[in-house]
Amino acid sequence: VTGERLDRADAETTADGVLDLLGLMAYAQLVAFFELTDDAASAISLADKAALAELAVAEFGHFRLLRRRIVELNADPEGVMQPFVAAVDAFHARTAPSDWLESLIKAYVGDGIAADFYEVVAGLLDTPTQALVLEVLSDSGRSTFVIERIRAAIAADPRVAGRLALWARRLVGEASAQAQRVAAEREPLARLLASSPPSELESANAPGQPGDIGRMFARLADAHTARMAQLGLSD
Amino acid sequence: VTGERLDRADAETTADGVLDLLGLMAYAQLVAFFELTDDAASAISLADKAALAELAVAEFGHFRLLRRRIVELNADPEGVMQPFVAAVDAFHARTAPSDWLESLIKAYVGDGIAADFYEVVAGLLDTPTQALVLEVLSDSGRSTFVIERIRAAIAADPRVAGRLALWARRLVGEASAQAQRVAAEREPLARLLASSPPSELESANAPGQPGDIGRMFARLADAHTARMAQLGLSD
Repeated sequence: VTGERLDRADAETTADGVLDLLGLMAYAQLVAFFELTDDAASAISLADKAALAELAVAEFGHFRLLRRRIVELNADPEGVMQPFVAAVDAFHARTAPSDWLESLIKAYVGDGIAADFYEVVAGLLDTPTQALVLEVLSDSGRSTFVIERIRAAIAADPRVAGRLALWARRLVGEASAQAQRVAAEREPLARLLASSPPSELESANAPGQPGDIGRMFARLADAHTARMAQLGLSD
Repeated sequence: VTGERLDRADAETTADGVLDLLGLMAYAQLVAFFELTDDAASAISLADKAALAELAVAEFGHFRLLRRRIVELNADPEGVMQPFVAAVDAFHARTAPSDWLESLIKAYVGDGIAADFYEVVAGLLDTPTQALVLEVLSDSGRSTFVIERIRAAIAADPRVAGRLALWARRLVGEASAQAQRVAAEREPLARLLASSPPSELESANAPGQPGDIGRMFARLADAHTARMAQLGLSD
Protein backbone atom coordinates (compact mmCIF):
# COMPACT_ATOMS: atom_id res chain seq x y z
CA VAL A 1 0.00 0.00 0.00
CA THR A 2 2.83 2.36 0.87
CA GLY A 3 4.44 1.62 -2.52
CA GLU A 4 1.17 2.27 -4.37
CA ARG A 5 0.62 5.48 -2.49
CA LEU A 6 4.13 6.59 -3.37
CA ASP A 7 3.53 5.69 -7.06
CA ARG A 8 0.42 7.82 -7.07
CA ALA A 9 2.34 10.63 -5.39
CA ASP A 10 5.03 10.26 -8.07
CA ALA A 11 2.46 10.42 -10.86
CA GLU A 12 0.94 13.54 -9.31
CA THR A 13 4.36 15.14 -8.95
CA THR A 14 5.09 14.36 -12.61
CA ALA A 15 1.71 15.79 -13.70
CA ASP A 16 2.43 18.93 -11.65
CA GLY A 17 5.84 19.14 -13.28
CA VAL A 18 4.31 18.89 -16.76
CA LEU A 19 1.82 21.63 -15.94
CA ASP A 20 4.65 23.78 -14.57
CA LEU A 21 6.61 23.20 -17.74
CA LEU A 22 3.62 24.08 -19.95
CA GLY A 23 2.93 27.19 -17.87
CA LEU A 24 6.55 28.32 -18.08
CA MET A 25 6.78 27.72 -21.83
CA ALA A 26 3.38 29.31 -22.53
CA TYR A 27 4.17 32.44 -20.57
CA ALA A 28 7.69 32.67 -22.02
CA GLN A 29 6.22 32.44 -25.55
CA LEU A 30 3.52 35.01 -24.81
CA VAL A 31 6.08 37.49 -23.50
CA ALA A 32 8.45 36.70 -26.38
CA PHE A 33 5.61 37.70 -28.69
CA PHE A 34 5.18 41.06 -26.94
CA GLU A 35 8.91 41.77 -26.63
CA LEU A 36 9.73 40.82 -30.23
CA THR A 37 6.84 42.91 -31.51
CA ASP A 38 8.10 45.84 -29.49
CA ASP A 39 11.59 45.36 -30.92
CA ALA A 40 10.17 45.00 -34.44
CA ALA A 41 8.29 48.29 -34.09
CA SER A 42 11.62 50.05 -33.51
CA ALA A 43 13.10 48.87 -36.84
CA ILE A 44 13.69 51.63 -39.35
CA SER A 45 12.74 49.83 -42.56
CA LEU A 46 9.28 48.38 -43.09
CA ALA A 47 10.89 45.15 -44.35
CA ASP A 48 12.83 44.71 -41.07
CA LYS A 49 9.72 45.55 -39.06
CA ALA A 50 7.77 42.87 -40.93
CA ALA A 51 10.56 40.27 -40.68
CA LEU A 52 10.83 40.49 -36.90
CA ALA A 53 7.03 40.71 -36.57
CA GLU A 54 6.84 37.36 -38.45
CA LEU A 55 8.98 35.84 -35.74
CA ALA A 56 6.82 37.38 -33.02
CA VAL A 57 3.64 36.03 -34.59
CA ALA A 58 5.19 32.53 -34.75
CA GLU A 59 5.87 32.76 -30.99
CA PHE A 60 2.23 33.63 -30.45
CA GLY A 61 1.29 30.51 -32.41
CA HIS A 62 3.43 28.46 -30.02
CA PHE A 63 1.72 30.13 -27.06
CA ARG A 64 -1.66 29.12 -28.53
CA LEU A 65 -0.60 25.46 -28.85
CA LEU A 66 0.75 25.34 -25.30
CA ARG A 67 -2.33 27.03 -23.86
CA ARG A 68 -4.55 24.53 -25.68
CA ARG A 69 -2.70 21.65 -24.01
CA ILE A 70 -3.07 23.29 -20.59
CA VAL A 71 -6.83 23.54 -21.18
CA GLU A 72 -6.92 19.89 -22.35
CA LEU A 73 -5.36 18.96 -19.00
CA ASN A 74 -8.30 20.72 -17.28
CA ALA A 75 -6.07 23.41 -15.87
CA ASP A 76 -6.50 27.18 -15.95
CA PRO A 77 -3.89 28.75 -18.26
CA GLU A 78 -3.62 31.93 -16.19
CA GLY A 79 -3.11 30.02 -12.97
CA VAL A 80 -0.53 27.73 -14.54
CA MET A 81 1.44 30.63 -16.06
CA GLN A 82 1.31 32.88 -12.98
CA PRO A 83 4.22 31.28 -11.02
CA PHE A 84 6.59 32.12 -13.90
CA VAL A 85 5.59 35.73 -14.49
CA ALA A 86 8.20 37.20 -12.14
CA ALA A 87 11.18 35.24 -13.56
CA VAL A 88 10.30 35.73 -17.23
CA ASP A 89 9.51 39.41 -16.74
CA ALA A 90 12.76 39.89 -14.80
CA PHE A 91 14.71 38.32 -17.67
CA HIS A 92 13.24 40.80 -20.15
CA ALA A 93 13.58 43.78 -17.83
CA ARG A 94 17.32 43.03 -17.58
CA THR A 95 17.80 42.39 -21.31
CA ALA A 96 16.08 45.28 -23.09
CA PRO A 97 17.95 45.63 -26.43
CA SER A 98 19.51 49.05 -26.91
CA ASP A 99 19.50 48.89 -30.71
CA TRP A 100 18.37 46.90 -33.71
CA LEU A 101 21.39 44.54 -33.77
CA GLU A 102 20.88 43.70 -30.10
CA SER A 103 17.21 42.99 -30.90
CA LEU A 104 18.24 40.62 -33.69
CA ILE A 105 20.74 38.81 -31.44
CA LYS A 106 18.14 38.49 -28.70
CA ALA A 107 15.59 37.08 -31.17
CA TYR A 108 18.12 34.56 -32.50
CA VAL A 109 19.53 33.53 -29.13
CA GLY A 110 16.06 33.30 -27.56
CA ASP A 111 14.63 31.25 -30.42
CA GLY A 112 17.65 28.95 -30.34
CA ILE A 113 17.64 28.36 -26.59
CA ALA A 114 13.88 27.74 -26.66
CA ALA A 115 14.29 25.15 -29.44
CA ASP A 116 17.12 23.39 -27.58
CA PHE A 117 15.10 23.41 -24.38
CA TYR A 118 12.08 21.92 -26.16
CA GLU A 119 14.26 19.20 -27.62
CA VAL A 120 15.71 18.33 -24.19
CA VAL A 121 12.37 18.28 -22.36
CA ALA A 122 10.41 16.45 -25.10
CA GLY A 123 11.88 13.14 -23.88
CA LEU A 124 10.53 13.70 -20.35
CA LEU A 125 6.89 14.15 -21.28
CA ASP A 126 3.72 12.09 -21.72
CA THR A 127 2.92 11.27 -25.37
CA PRO A 128 0.36 14.02 -26.17
CA THR A 129 2.41 16.75 -24.50
CA GLN A 130 5.52 15.44 -26.22
CA ALA A 131 3.75 15.61 -29.60
CA LEU A 132 2.81 19.20 -28.88
CA VAL A 133 6.33 20.20 -27.87
CA LEU A 134 7.71 18.57 -31.02
CA GLU A 135 5.13 20.48 -33.07
CA VAL A 136 6.32 23.75 -31.54
CA LEU A 137 9.91 22.68 -32.09
CA SER A 138 9.33 21.92 -35.78
CA ASP A 139 8.06 25.48 -36.22
CA SER A 140 11.22 26.97 -34.65
CA GLY A 141 14.29 28.08 -36.57
CA ARG A 142 12.54 31.02 -38.22
CA SER A 143 15.22 33.33 -36.91
CA THR A 144 17.86 32.15 -39.39
CA PHE A 145 17.36 35.39 -41.38
CA VAL A 146 19.23 37.02 -38.51
CA ILE A 147 22.49 35.21 -39.40
CA GLU A 148 22.86 37.09 -42.70
CA ARG A 149 22.10 40.47 -41.11
CA ILE A 150 24.54 40.04 -38.24
CA ARG A 151 27.33 38.83 -40.53
CA ALA A 152 26.75 41.83 -42.81
CA ALA A 153 26.86 44.22 -39.84
CA ILE A 154 30.15 42.69 -38.65
CA ALA A 155 31.60 42.86 -42.17
CA ALA A 156 30.67 46.55 -42.35
CA ASP A 157 32.16 47.31 -38.91
CA PRO A 158 34.21 44.51 -37.27
CA ARG A 159 34.15 46.31 -33.90
CA VAL A 160 30.46 45.38 -33.65
CA ALA A 161 31.40 41.72 -33.06
CA GLY A 162 32.86 42.26 -29.60
CA ARG A 163 29.88 44.23 -28.36
CA LEU A 164 27.40 41.68 -29.71
CA ALA A 165 29.34 38.70 -28.32
CA LEU A 166 29.23 40.37 -24.90
CA TRP A 167 25.51 41.02 -25.33
CA ALA A 168 24.84 37.37 -26.25
CA ARG A 169 26.79 36.25 -23.18
CA ARG A 170 24.73 38.55 -21.02
CA LEU A 171 21.49 37.14 -22.47
CA VAL A 172 22.56 33.60 -21.66
CA GLY A 173 23.72 34.61 -18.19
CA GLU A 174 20.40 36.28 -17.37
CA ALA A 175 18.41 33.34 -18.82
CA SER A 176 20.44 30.91 -16.76
CA ALA A 177 20.00 33.00 -13.58
CA GLN A 178 16.22 33.10 -14.02
CA ALA A 179 16.09 29.39 -14.92
CA GLN A 180 17.91 28.56 -11.70
CA ARG A 181 15.50 30.77 -9.76
CA VAL A 182 12.57 28.91 -11.33
CA ALA A 183 14.14 25.51 -10.62
CA ALA A 184 14.67 26.51 -6.99
CA GLU A 185 11.11 27.81 -6.56
CA ARG A 186 9.20 25.10 -8.44
CA GLU A 187 10.00 21.69 -7.09
CA PRO A 188 7.74 19.63 -9.41
CA LEU A 189 9.34 21.29 -12.43
CA ALA A 190 12.86 20.81 -11.05
CA ARG A 191 12.14 17.11 -10.46
CA LEU A 192 10.74 16.66 -13.95
CA LEU A 193 13.74 18.35 -15.54
CA ALA A 194 16.09 16.27 -13.45
CA SER A 195 14.06 13.17 -14.49
CA SER A 196 14.29 11.89 -10.96
CA PRO A 197 11.07 11.30 -9.02
CA PRO A 198 11.68 11.38 -5.25
CA SER A 199 12.82 8.07 -3.76
CA GLU A 200 11.63 6.84 -0.35
CA LEU A 201 14.94 7.87 1.13
CA GLU A 202 14.64 11.48 0.02
CA SER A 203 12.82 14.04 2.10
CA ALA A 204 9.56 15.27 0.58
CA ASN A 205 11.05 18.75 0.41
CA ALA A 206 14.28 17.75 -1.37
CA PRO A 207 14.82 19.63 -4.63
CA GLY A 208 15.49 17.82 -7.95
CA GLN A 209 19.03 16.61 -8.62
CA PRO A 210 21.13 19.73 -9.16
CA GLY A 211 23.63 17.62 -11.09
CA ASP A 212 21.11 16.62 -13.75
CA ILE A 213 19.78 20.15 -14.19
CA GLY A 214 23.39 21.30 -14.39
CA ARG A 215 23.99 18.84 -17.24
CA MET A 216 20.93 20.21 -19.03
CA PHE A 217 22.25 23.78 -18.71
CA ALA A 218 25.65 22.61 -19.99
CA ARG A 219 24.00 21.04 -23.03
CA LEU A 220 22.09 24.27 -23.74
CA ALA A 221 25.30 26.28 -23.33
CA ASP A 222 27.15 24.09 -25.87
CA ALA A 223 24.39 24.55 -28.43
CA HIS A 224 24.49 28.29 -27.78
CA THR A 225 28.25 28.41 -28.43
CA ALA A 226 27.71 26.66 -31.78
CA ARG A 227 25.05 29.23 -32.70
CA MET A 228 27.34 32.12 -31.82
CA ALA A 229 29.98 30.71 -34.15
CA GLN A 230 27.37 30.65 -36.95
CA LEU A 231 26.80 34.36 -36.42
CA GLY A 232 30.53 35.00 -36.64
CA LEU A 233 30.73 35.71 -32.91
CA SER A 234 33.16 33.84 -30.71
CA ASP A 235 31.64 33.01 -27.34
CA VAL B 1 -5.68 56.53 -81.55
CA THR B 2 -6.42 59.24 -79.01
CA GLY B 3 -9.23 57.07 -77.57
CA GLU B 4 -6.91 54.05 -77.31
CA ARG B 5 -4.23 56.12 -75.66
CA LEU B 6 -6.79 57.40 -73.16
CA ASP B 7 -7.99 53.85 -72.46
CA ARG B 8 -4.45 52.82 -71.73
CA ALA B 9 -4.01 55.85 -69.51
CA ASP B 10 -7.24 54.89 -67.69
CA ALA B 11 -6.03 51.32 -67.18
CA GLU B 12 -2.75 52.61 -65.78
CA THR B 13 -4.57 55.03 -63.48
CA THR B 14 -6.75 52.15 -62.23
CA ALA B 15 -3.71 49.91 -61.70
CA ASP B 16 -2.01 52.73 -59.77
CA GLY B 17 -5.18 53.15 -57.74
CA VAL B 18 -5.27 49.44 -56.89
CA LEU B 19 -1.62 49.52 -55.81
CA ASP B 20 -2.32 52.61 -53.71
CA LEU B 21 -5.24 50.84 -52.10
CA LEU B 22 -3.16 47.72 -51.39
CA GLY B 23 -0.35 49.86 -49.99
CA LEU B 24 -2.73 51.79 -47.73
CA MET B 25 -4.46 48.64 -46.48
CA ALA B 26 -1.19 46.74 -45.99
CA TYR B 27 0.42 49.55 -44.01
CA ALA B 28 -2.75 50.15 -41.99
CA GLN B 29 -2.87 46.43 -41.08
CA LEU B 30 0.83 46.32 -40.18
CA VAL B 31 0.47 49.31 -37.87
CA ALA B 32 -2.79 47.93 -36.44
CA PHE B 33 -0.78 44.82 -35.52
CA PHE B 34 1.83 46.88 -33.67
CA GLU B 35 -0.66 49.18 -31.97
CA LEU B 36 -2.99 46.40 -30.87
CA THR B 37 -0.07 44.39 -29.53
CA ASP B 38 1.09 47.41 -27.59
CA ASP B 39 -2.42 47.88 -26.17
CA ALA B 40 -2.63 44.14 -25.38
CA ALA B 41 0.64 44.30 -23.44
CA SER B 42 -0.92 46.88 -21.11
CA ALA B 43 -3.82 44.59 -20.10
CA ILE B 44 -3.74 43.50 -16.49
CA SER B 45 -4.97 39.92 -16.85
CA LEU B 46 -3.13 37.37 -18.96
CA ALA B 47 -6.45 36.34 -20.54
CA ASP B 48 -7.12 39.92 -21.72
CA LYS B 49 -3.55 40.22 -22.98
CA ALA B 50 -3.96 37.04 -25.02
CA ALA B 51 -7.41 38.02 -26.34
CA LEU B 52 -6.25 41.35 -27.78
CA ALA B 53 -3.02 39.75 -29.01
CA GLU B 54 -5.18 37.28 -31.01
CA LEU B 55 -6.74 40.24 -32.76
CA ALA B 56 -3.33 41.78 -33.43
CA VAL B 57 -2.03 38.53 -34.91
CA ALA B 58 -5.08 38.33 -37.21
CA GLU B 59 -4.25 41.84 -38.49
CA PHE B 60 -0.72 40.66 -39.23
CA GLY B 61 -2.20 37.79 -41.25
CA HIS B 62 -4.14 40.36 -43.31
CA PHE B 63 -0.96 42.36 -43.82
CA ARG B 64 0.73 39.19 -45.13
CA LEU B 65 -2.06 38.56 -47.66
CA LEU B 66 -2.02 42.16 -48.91
CA ARG B 67 1.77 42.20 -49.18
CA ARG B 68 1.67 38.96 -51.18
CA ARG B 69 -0.71 40.57 -53.70
CA ILE B 70 1.56 43.63 -54.01
CA VAL B 71 4.48 41.31 -54.80
CA GLU B 72 2.33 39.40 -57.33
CA LEU B 73 1.73 42.73 -59.07
CA ASN B 74 5.54 43.10 -59.38
CA ALA B 75 5.59 46.07 -57.05
CA ASP B 76 7.81 46.69 -54.03
CA PRO B 77 5.75 46.48 -50.81
CA GLU B 78 7.83 49.11 -49.01
CA GLY B 79 7.54 51.58 -51.87
CA VAL B 80 3.80 51.01 -52.19
CA MET B 81 3.20 51.45 -48.46
CA GLN B 82 5.46 54.48 -48.00
CA PRO B 83 3.00 57.17 -49.22
CA PHE B 84 0.57 56.19 -46.45
CA VAL B 85 2.99 56.09 -43.53
CA ALA B 86 2.43 59.71 -42.49
CA ALA B 87 -1.39 59.57 -42.48
CA VAL B 88 -1.69 56.18 -40.73
CA ASP B 89 0.97 57.10 -38.15
CA ALA B 90 -0.74 60.46 -37.53
CA PHE B 91 -4.04 58.67 -36.89
CA HIS B 92 -2.45 56.47 -34.21
CA ALA B 93 -0.43 59.31 -32.67
CA ARG B 94 -3.72 61.20 -32.16
CA THR B 95 -5.65 58.22 -30.84
CA ALA B 96 -3.43 56.58 -28.24
CA PRO B 97 -5.85 54.84 -25.83
CA SER B 98 -5.52 56.06 -22.25
CA ASP B 99 -6.85 52.85 -20.67
CA TRP B 100 -7.96 49.31 -21.36
CA LEU B 101 -11.57 50.21 -22.26
CA GLU B 102 -10.37 52.79 -24.78
CA SER B 103 -8.07 50.11 -26.25
CA LEU B 104 -11.02 47.75 -26.61
CA ILE B 105 -13.17 50.42 -28.27
CA LYS B 106 -10.35 51.30 -30.64
CA ALA B 107 -9.87 47.63 -31.57
CA TYR B 108 -13.59 47.18 -32.18
CA VAL B 109 -14.12 50.43 -34.08
CA GLY B 110 -10.96 49.95 -36.15
CA ASP B 111 -11.77 46.35 -37.04
CA GLY B 112 -15.32 47.36 -37.97
CA ILE B 113 -14.37 50.33 -40.13
CA ALA B 114 -11.71 48.23 -41.89
CA ALA B 115 -14.26 45.50 -42.64
CA ASP B 116 -16.78 48.02 -43.98
CA PHE B 117 -14.10 49.67 -46.09
CA TYR B 118 -13.04 46.30 -47.53
CA GLU B 119 -16.65 45.52 -48.39
CA VAL B 120 -17.09 48.87 -50.16
CA VAL B 121 -13.85 48.69 -52.16
CA ALA B 122 -14.12 45.00 -53.12
CA GLY B 123 -16.55 45.92 -55.89
CA LEU B 124 -14.03 48.31 -57.47
CA LEU B 125 -11.21 45.81 -57.91
CA ASP B 126 -9.88 43.35 -60.48
CA THR B 127 -10.87 39.74 -59.80
CA PRO B 128 -7.70 38.44 -58.03
CA THR B 129 -7.40 41.54 -55.83
CA GLN B 130 -11.12 41.35 -55.08
CA ALA B 131 -10.75 37.70 -54.03
CA LEU B 132 -7.94 38.72 -51.70
CA VAL B 133 -9.90 41.56 -50.13
CA LEU B 134 -12.88 39.24 -49.60
CA GLU B 135 -10.55 36.72 -47.96
CA VAL B 136 -9.32 39.40 -45.55
CA LEU B 137 -12.92 40.48 -44.98
CA SER B 138 -14.06 36.94 -44.15
CA ASP B 139 -11.41 36.82 -41.43
CA SER B 140 -12.64 40.07 -39.83
CA GLY B 141 -15.15 40.28 -37.03
CA ARG B 142 -12.83 38.78 -34.43
CA SER B 143 -13.36 41.78 -32.22
CA THR B 144 -16.88 40.75 -31.18
CA PHE B 145 -15.50 39.63 -27.79
CA VAL B 146 -15.23 43.34 -27.09
CA ILE B 147 -19.03 43.80 -27.07
CA GLU B 148 -19.47 41.72 -23.91
CA ARG B 149 -16.63 43.47 -22.08
CA ILE B 150 -17.83 46.98 -22.90
CA ARG B 151 -21.43 46.17 -21.94
CA ALA B 152 -20.20 44.73 -18.64
CA ALA B 153 -18.10 47.84 -17.96
CA ILE B 154 -21.11 50.09 -18.64
CA ALA B 155 -23.34 47.93 -16.44
CA ALA B 156 -20.79 48.24 -13.62
CA ASP B 157 -20.48 52.01 -14.03
CA PRO B 158 -22.97 53.71 -16.38
CA ARG B 159 -20.91 56.93 -16.44
CA VAL B 160 -18.34 55.07 -18.55
CA ALA B 161 -20.75 55.12 -21.53
CA GLY B 162 -20.47 58.87 -22.14
CA ARG B 163 -16.69 58.89 -22.09
CA LEU B 164 -16.45 55.88 -24.42
CA ALA B 165 -19.04 57.29 -26.86
CA LEU B 166 -16.97 60.47 -27.05
CA TRP B 167 -13.81 58.41 -27.58
CA ALA B 168 -15.43 56.41 -30.40
CA ARG B 169 -16.55 59.66 -32.04
CA ARG B 170 -13.03 60.99 -31.82
CA LEU B 171 -11.63 57.80 -33.42
CA VAL B 172 -14.01 58.15 -36.36
CA GLY B 173 -13.26 61.86 -36.69
CA GLU B 174 -9.50 61.29 -36.79
CA ALA B 175 -9.88 58.37 -39.23
CA SER B 176 -12.03 60.51 -41.49
CA ALA B 177 -9.57 63.43 -41.34
CA GLN B 178 -6.66 61.18 -42.33
CA ALA B 179 -8.72 59.47 -45.04
CA GLN B 180 -9.51 62.86 -46.57
CA ARG B 181 -5.83 63.78 -46.42
CA VAL B 182 -4.96 60.54 -48.24
CA ALA B 183 -7.68 61.09 -50.85
CA ALA B 184 -6.38 64.63 -51.48
CA GLU B 185 -2.75 63.48 -51.79
CA ARG B 186 -3.22 60.29 -53.83
CA GLU B 187 -5.14 60.99 -56.98
CA PRO B 188 -5.13 57.41 -58.40
CA LEU B 189 -6.60 56.13 -55.14
CA ALA B 190 -9.17 58.93 -54.98
CA ARG B 191 -10.28 58.15 -58.56
CA LEU B 192 -10.56 54.44 -57.82
CA LEU B 193 -12.61 55.04 -54.69
CA ALA B 194 -14.83 57.45 -56.57
CA SER B 195 -15.12 54.80 -59.36
CA SER B 196 -14.77 57.53 -61.93
CA PRO B 197 -11.85 57.36 -64.34
CA PRO B 198 -11.00 60.83 -65.77
CA SER B 199 -13.06 61.85 -68.79
CA GLU B 200 -11.59 63.80 -71.72
CA LEU B 201 -13.22 66.95 -70.38
CA GLU B 202 -11.56 66.73 -66.99
CA SER B 203 -8.14 68.18 -66.38
CA ALA B 204 -5.47 65.57 -65.72
CA ASN B 205 -4.98 67.03 -62.26
CA ALA B 206 -8.64 66.97 -61.23
CA PRO B 207 -9.23 64.95 -58.07
CA GLY B 208 -11.78 62.11 -57.91
CA GLN B 209 -15.44 63.02 -57.44
CA PRO B 210 -15.72 64.36 -53.91
CA GLY B 211 -19.43 63.49 -53.96
CA ASP B 212 -18.77 59.78 -54.44
CA ILE B 213 -16.09 59.64 -51.78
CA GLY B 214 -18.44 61.57 -49.54
CA ARG B 215 -21.12 58.91 -50.08
CA MET B 216 -18.59 56.24 -49.17
CA PHE B 217 -17.75 58.04 -45.92
CA ALA B 218 -21.45 58.40 -45.17
CA ARG B 219 -21.95 54.64 -45.65
CA LEU B 220 -19.04 53.88 -43.30
CA ALA B 221 -20.43 56.35 -40.75
CA ASP B 222 -23.86 54.65 -40.79
CA ALA B 223 -22.28 51.25 -40.19
CA HIS B 224 -20.25 52.76 -37.35
CA THR B 225 -23.40 54.12 -35.70
CA ALA B 226 -24.96 50.65 -35.83
CA ARG B 227 -21.85 49.18 -34.18
CA MET B 228 -21.91 51.76 -31.41
CA ALA B 229 -25.53 50.82 -30.64
CA GLN B 230 -24.40 47.17 -30.31
CA LEU B 231 -21.92 48.25 -27.66
CA GLY B 232 -24.63 50.08 -25.77
CA LEU B 233 -23.20 53.46 -26.80
CA SER B 234 -25.32 56.04 -28.53
CA ASP B 235 -23.38 57.85 -31.23
